Amino acid sequence: MREIVVFSGSAHRGLASAICDALGVPLSSVELTRFSNDCLQAQLQTNCRQRDVYIVQPLVPPTQEHLMELLLMVDAARGASAAQITAVVPYYAYARSDKKDASRLSIGGRLVADLLATAGVHRVMTMTLHAPQVHAFFSVPVDHLTALGVLADHFLAQDLTDSVVVSPDFGNAKTATQFSRLLGLPVAAGSKKRLADDRVVIDEIVGDVEGKRAIVLDDEIATGGSIVELLDRLAERGCTGAAVACTHGLFVAKAVDRLRDHPMITEVVTTDTVPPPADWPALRVRSVADLFARAIEGVHAGESVSSLFDGVDPSLAPPQPRLFD
Amino acid sequence: MREIVVFSGSAHRGLASAICDALGVPLSSVELTRFSNDCLQAQLQTNCRQRDVYIVQPLVPPTQEHLMELLLMVDAARGASAAQITAVVPYYAYARSDKKDASRLSIGGRLVADLLATAGVHRVMTMTLHAPQVHAFFSVPVDHLTALGVLADHFLAQDLTDSVVVSPDFGNAKTATQFSRLLGLPVAAGSKKRLADDRVVIDEIVGDVEGKRAIVLDDEIATGGSIVELLDRLAERGCTGAAVACTHGLFVAKAVDRLRDHPMITEVVTTDTVPPPADWPALRVRSVADLFARAIEGVHAGESVSSLFDGVDPSLAPPQPRLFD
Amino acid sequence: MREIVVFSGSAHRGLASAICDALGVPLSSVELTRFSNDCLQAQLQTNCRQRDVYIVQPLVPPTQEHLMELLLMVDAARGASAAQITAVVPYYAYARSDKKDASRLSIGGRLVADLLATAGVHRVMTMTLHAPQVHAFFSVPVDHLTALGVLADHFLAQDLTDSVVVSPDFGNAKTATQFSRLLGLPVAAGSKKRLADDRVVIDEIVGDVEGKRAIVLDDEIATGGSIVELLDRLAERGCTGAAVACTHGLFVAKAVDRLRDHPMITEVVTTDTVPPPADWPALRVRSVADLFARAIEGVHAGESVSSLFDGVDPSLAPPQPRLFD
Amino acid sequence: MREIVVFSGSAHRGLASAICDALGVPLSSVELTRFSNDCLQAQLQTNCRQRDVYIVQPLVPPTQEHLMELLLMVDAARGASAAQITAVVPYYAYARSDKKDASRLSIGGRLVADLLATAGVHRVMTMTLHAPQVHAFFSVPVDHLTALGVLADHFLAQDLTDSVVVSPDFGNAKTATQFSRLLGLPVAAGSKKRLADDRVVIDEIVGDVEGKRAIVLDDEIATGGSIVELLDRLAERGCTGAAVACTHGLFVAKAVDRLRDHPMITEVVTTDTVPPPADWPALRVRSVADLFARAIEGVHAGESVSSLFDGVDPSLAPPQPRLFD
Amino acid sequence: MREIVVFSGSAHRGLASAICDALGVPLSSVELTRFSNDCLQAQLQTNCRQRDVYIVQPLVPPTQEHLMELLLMVDAARGASAAQITAVVPYYAYARSDKKDASRLSIGGRLVADLLATAGVHRVMTMTLHAPQVHAFFSVPVDHLTALGVLADHFLAQDLTDSVVVSPDFGNAKTATQFSRLLGLPVAAGSKKRLADDRVVIDEIVGDVEGKRAIVLDDEIATGGSIVELLDRLAERGCTGAAVACTHGLFVAKAVDRLRDHPMITEVVTTDTVPPPADWPALRVRSVADLFARAIEGVHAGESVSSLFDGVDPSLAPPQPRLFD
Amino acid sequence: MREIVVFSGSAHRGLASAICDALGVPLSSVELTRFSNDCLQAQLQTNCRQRDVYIVQPLVPPTQEHLMELLLMVDAARGASAAQITAVVPYYAYARSDKKDASRLSIGGRLVADLLATAGVHRVMTMTLHAPQVHAFFSVPVDHLTALGVLADHFLAQDLTDSVVVSPDFGNAKTATQFSRLLGLPVAAGSKKRLADDRVVIDEIVGDVEGKRAIVLDDEIATGGSIVELLDRLAERGCTGAAVACTHGLFVAKAVDRLRDHPMITEVVTTDTVPPPADWPALRVRSVADLFARAIEGVHAGESVSSLFDGVDPSLAPPQPRLFD
Repeated sequence: MREIVVFSGSAHRGLASAICDALGVPLSSVELTRFSNDCLQAQLQTNCRQRDVYIVQPLVPPTQEHLMELLLMVDAARGASAAQITAVVPYYAYARSDKKDASRLSIGGRLVADLLATAGVHRVMTMTLHAPQVHAFFSVPVDHLTALGVLADHFLAQDLTDSVVVSPDFGNAKTATQFSRLLGLPVAAGSKKRLADDRVVIDEIVGDVEGKRAIVLDDEIATGGSIVELLDRLAERGCTGAAVACTHGLFVAKAVDRLRDHPMITEVVTTDTVPPPADWPALRVRSVADLFARAIEGVHAGESVSSLFDGVDPSLAPPQPRLFD
Repeated sequence: MREIVVFSGSAHRGLASAICDALGVPLSSVELTRFSNDCLQAQLQTNCRQRDVYIVQPLVPPTQEHLMELLLMVDAARGASAAQITAVVPYYAYARSDKKDASRLSIGGRLVADLLATAGVHRVMTMTLHAPQVHAFFSVPVDHLTALGVLADHFLAQDLTDSVVVSPDFGNAKTATQFSRLLGLPVAAGSKKRLADDRVVIDEIVGDVEGKRAIVLDDEIATGGSIVELLDRLAERGCTGAAVACTHGLFVAKAVDRLRDHPMITEVVTTDTVPPPADWPALRVRSVADLFARAIEGVHAGESVSSLFDGVDPSLAPPQPRLFD
Repeated sequence: MREIVVFSGSAHRGLASAICDALGVPLSSVELTRFSNDCLQAQLQTNCRQRDVYIVQPLVPPTQEHLMELLLMVDAARGASAAQITAVVPYYAYARSDKKDASRLSIGGRLVADLLATAGVHRVMTMTLHAPQVHAFFSVPVDHLTALGVLADHFLAQDLTDSVVVSPDFGNAKTATQFSRLLGLPVAAGSKKRLADDRVVIDEIVGDVEGKRAIVLDDEIATGGSIVELLDRLAERGCTGAAVACTHGLFVAKAVDRLRDHPMITEVVTTDTVPPPADWPALRVRSVADLFARAIEGVHAGESVSSLFDGVDPSLAPPQPRLFD
Repeated sequence: MREIVVFSGSAHRGLASAICDALGVPLSSVELTRFSNDCLQAQLQTNCRQRDVYIVQPLVPPTQEHLMELLLMVDAARGASAAQITAVVPYYAYARSDKKDASRLSIGGRLVADLLATAGVHRVMTMTLHAPQVHAFFSVPVDHLTALGVLADHFLAQDLTDSVVVSPDFGNAKTATQFSRLLGLPVAAGSKKRLADDRVVIDEIVGDVEGKRAIVLDDEIATGGSIVELLDRLAERGCTGAAVACTHGLFVAKAVDRLRDHPMITEVVTTDTVPPPADWPALRVRSVADLFARAIEGVHAGESVSSLFDGVDPSLAPPQPRLFD
Repeated sequence: MREIVVFSGSAHRGLASAICDALGVPLSSVELTRFSNDCLQAQLQTNCRQRDVYIVQPLVPPTQEHLMELLLMVDAARGASAAQITAVVPYYAYARSDKKDASRLSIGGRLVADLLATAGVHRVMTMTLHAPQVHAFFSVPVDHLTALGVLADHFLAQDLTDSVVVSPDFGNAKTATQFSRLLGLPVAAGSKKRLADDRVVIDEIVGDVEGKRAIVLDDEIATGGSIVELLDRLAERGCTGAAVACTHGLFVAKAVDRLRDHPMITEVVTTDTVPPPADWPALRVRSVADLFARAIEGVHAGESVSSLFDGVDPSLAPPQPRLFD
Repeated sequence: MREIVVFSGSAHRGLASAICDALGVPLSSVELTRFSNDCLQAQLQTNCRQRDVYIVQPLVPPTQEHLMELLLMVDAARGASAAQITAVVPYYAYARSDKKDASRLSIGGRLVADLLATAGVHRVMTMTLHAPQVHAFFSVPVDHLTALGVLADHFLAQDLTDSVVVSPDFGNAKTATQFSRLLGLPVAAGSKKRLADDRVVIDEIVGDVEGKRAIVLDDEIATGGSIVELLDRLAERGCTGAAVACTHGLFVAKAVDRLRDHPMITEVVTTDTVPPPADWPALRVRSVADLFARAIEGVHAGESVSSLFDGVDPSLAPPQPRLFD
């Protein structure tokens, strides 16, 4: 069996190290040079010939820098005759740019998928894409992992009496329903309304939340604006408090301030697909490094990644596709 | 300016003729031969050199036959030195196969897009894709038209007192909301629940429908099963009757029987993106031929297709994309 | 050595099972779903990661359905990270659409080859293409097997006194000559003439057939019209009877009726590249499953497929190409 | 309409000049440099921006030199922003390398087609390919011209009493039949037999030639060996003499000596797709320059090239493709 | 003739405006949106259908941001059906990453060229690439302009008695020689030596500089370190003062401080391929906007860009390539 | 581990045999056929399935012939299902055609790289490319070997007192400096000047050569003109004699006559990347066969080729790329 070599860009070395620990392989180093005209250059410091190369790099801010680093490392691995090059992108930031809502609009999700293929990537491993269709933007195979099990384990260790899973909007409601079944809880969702201008607000809650503790689930939290708005509505409806959970905890701008001391919030749980904010010791970070390590082992051994989710209640597996009723 | 040549496969010559009438050009003929081993062959009967060729073919059943016809016509046009080849596919059936909900699953929506590109198409013109992300499956430019205006015109000629727009599920709710604003009406939606096995049922109606006439809007109706189930729920909630509207009226299997004489239904309205069923004279069919003709003229003259929707209340235009709140 | 996984589309499961028996591997199952809008979807039910995947599907009627099934299975195998994907297409129906005899004509043989490559196939295994040039339409390697040995074995068990091999036209005469040498017999051929309109008739027999039993050899028989016409000419020339042999026995339309009880015909021999007609028990079907199994083993072990024909008189091997005299 | 610019490689400037004269445009010059390490370089001496560029180069010996010249000129035209680049290759030498008769054999006809596409050609114009399937080896459009009309005009000016058209083998018999109908004459053909080793001889004549003058038609004549052998058989069968006609008159090696003073030969007629031999003043060369000029004009004006053959008896047009009887 | 539309990214709007002024067309606006997860999105605000689109964006720091902007604008233009998309990249920063001096090293110059092609660019217009071979990294046509004439005009207005052109190293010596002939002056060059570690120093001056005024010419100046070192050597050799000229005046880090008040420097001249530093009023900036505008006009009119350099002494044109002596 | 199969075209069988001896594998044979119309055909005579195929062919005159042979052998290997195809091109003649010094000029170095990729090559192994940027013209991985160590070994066996390494021009000076450090000697270089017409002469020697023996180093010697000119200058400067060394010893035209008996020359040393001239027994040829064999073994075992240069003084390794000072 071919040897595994793992490299990390500068986006999130902590996660790359944790994956390597779980795999029992060293993290190989990369020399990233920035020249005075701001150009970057990558030199892989370990022999890649006929090895399976994994390059760990979530697309976190500064996103363009990290994307360019990733492309250059893939290019270097290709030129160094790697047998198979997998981009491990735990957070694929461009996933949200997935449609053409207006004329002459770029579709970043497809463009970045094409750039990765151009640079020479053979396979992509990622987690919780914003919409499942984004999977098909890639012409190479994609392993699309989920953190639902990791997040559910966190709550299953608690008393869940009188709790309810809440999705901030309908778009995420399907996932929230799967999550609620893992926890054996009911589900509710916020409903968004578009105001006269381009502002969108949450104006309603579908489902019963009165006197209950909410477990709010979202795929990613950036500024935290939606979450705060949702908490206002939940408070109005008689909700007693809320735990907040998300896969991608970006917490940019004022997000930490907004959420850290919010009176409704009892705890915030996230994963380490992106580096955690430095100034928030109370944040609960559950690692997905083991999940990625097991996926890499599975790919390497030729096993199916879906078996990673064994033990999960089969009724929670994604529904069989039903194109028509 | 280059000359326009329009061909039609065998899927829907009626629509192709209507588009040609609106354009003021003749419909050029194609000789489609089926050999005794079931192979097909296409021969375009009009000179294509340096012309702009448009090939009209919705992907209606038998879908594979019609797809293969379309690919062969595109191939023939390429070999005949057409300057630009546009596939006019008013109904893109594979749009619903847009994600990988399970392992080792084909993604027909992306595959067919790639096949069209391989065959040599330069541009695709289509209507009401099931999900907006499907747009990005194509590496060639796509004109994505909507029939909302055509359907709204139908209802604006009626008395809309005490009416409500109803979407069968949350997936279509965004579009239903746009439609309701065109008509100046409130909106409601069915909520789907997944049973122990793989069956999905509508078990709830969100929004007030009591004592009202429903205008049910869906993007396409195939077997009509969901619609019938929705009507049962609407009846239970005190709804007095329903008009049913959809862009793509496939009406396969028992759909005509189910809907033609349903006690709740006052009328069914659809468009001619697909051929109407032969045995349903009361079906109201609104033509989108003019819309396609104006889009072809626009493309040919280098104008923006979005200008086709002038006159529509700007607040109904697709919302500006907001990747984050 | 990598594991072999064999799948079958719905075109000819019998042949796929026989190949698997000969290989000593199970036939893996595929879930093929047809939705109410006639779209297809394939889900491979066995893990394909890093396996060598073989997908058996002759392109028999309904040809477009079977082609689309094949493309979707290949796409699913690619997305499931198969190491190598081979399309086993014992009958490649589009081979006859191989030239541009008229303006603006599609060339299906090349187009379908390109579609298979687009879907992600790495290799094609087929039998008796109508013209050898079709081989070069594929950009991927092709294993082009022949059934001449299997058919010759059938006749070598008989008394061949006073027999003559007859080709229905000059196009097939080269192959008929090779076959005649395997049997140690002389050869004759029909000559086709084109009438004023587009009808083609056999009006002459080149070579001596008087008082002899004919062994008519063709690559494929569809409607049987040419064969019946040839038999009329043979009868006029004093031929006493005929055995009919072909590789691809499609027998569509009235072919079974025409040939089953024809007074000149003593027997009809074919192979199982395509499923045999249900209503013709007397038809002799020689299986090529072993030949395909040995070819798959050879490919898998890295051996040359041409060694499959060892034991065949070397003078019967295809002539060395002589571009010029 | 865009401007036409015509360049010529060093293979056959005479034909390029004649085409330019017929078009009324000057022949633009190319500086072809050979360096001391035998590398070539092409510099086009006329502005190509947004022009339609035609590069005339039959693939005559030294074939590899002329192919490389052609590729470099195409590359230079692409880099110089030509709007459309057409390779005018009156003789496509690699057409005969069109199948894989043995293991591990190169297929030059497909390879050279791919090389031309890689270099950037948009369209190919050629004449009398050895097999019609070669057309489909190209992924770009091909204009496939025929010289049958030009050669027929030559003989229609003569007394054709007691003449017969003769094809050297069955492979060319279809074309010979079309030619015989243009002249209103009967047709005959030689039959080739393969000896124990790899030598092929003509051992039979099918059709009546006794007491007649033969008009031997072949697509190309290289060494003339087959023709001399055919003439021996014709003499044995009582043929009184022969005119020899071919499209591509290569006449390599001893061909001129063999044919110039052959007692059976009354005249040899060919075209200028390749340069004529210097030492054979009696050779009749009919120019195809006008035919190519009219084809270029047709392409430029967006007309169908098949209209070039107007005036030819429609029954002589290529037969409609009949994949099955 | 098709209409010209010019867009500018955020790298250098001043140059884009100057080019538009010279062309007499308005600068069309682009809405560049940055989302809170740092993703970018471009929306072109002017109709691009069938227009020739020019997008002006030098790759100046922050280079990755500007590259991503450029790619997204090209993607948006492609999706908006532009007829031809030209990236106008006056400074191509990645040109210096052009070879593989060590294992596993990325080659950014080729990678970025491939990314631009993937995004859909049809043509690139740039100035003074670091090495001429970089031109061939692009698979699309490149217009490679030079600023030598603009810089020479500056000095020809001065008294050039006792001046000498000096190149900082041998790599740039060929260009410096061309420049010296435009000015009618002699030439000299610095010689670089590599120390034990990876430091490179200028330790010698080839050519006579004593008692002369130097005109130092380099293609780009980033930190100014080399220039300062060269000036030290020139001072040691008795040079009386120096004018410094370069095409790409990046002046990053301490460059302004180093050069602004250097005792040897009489003036610094550069162009506006990149935005000038804000805090250096004495810097002489010669605009290349006219040159780019004339190149765009030439491309648009189908003229040769090399005619832009008419009036330049022909002996200064690039030497004819001589692969061998 | 996969089996290695080595083939040789007709350019240099001696080197291919020597490489095979060093590898301990037989040289597999290829049947190369030239037809009377000058077309070539390649048939590989050894099974290639799932083997690693190496095809040895330097691009020596007749260059186009040898290139075409190489492409056809690669095509045959691809069709024969080779696992990996490496073109071993010890001398890549087109490397010097690497830039566009004038309008409408072909760039052969990039074009030939694209042709090799089109034919199906997976990897290229070569030696001493004229410019390092040529490496990036290939989209496949390149192993770029150097013969500096082999040539240095030759001289290290001699008395090097009062010797000096001399480069004929500045372009090669960097390599000459590396060579001089391997030998512990000083370095000098010729300076070229361009005369009024397109003639280039060496008019100066930089560095001290008086009373010394020169070791002239060039990457390749074709006609020898530059070397003779350099020797004249060296003689004028008091140089006592010269050894001449080069990697690629083409010695075309009068080169052998010019150099064999030149009064200044004491010996000429080269390698066997190209076949040595037949009539020059005194020429010292150092073989690089071992170097290529070790590189092939390294690639096959997945090791880094750069380790081949272990033992070489690290300060002589290629300098770390410094894009900016």
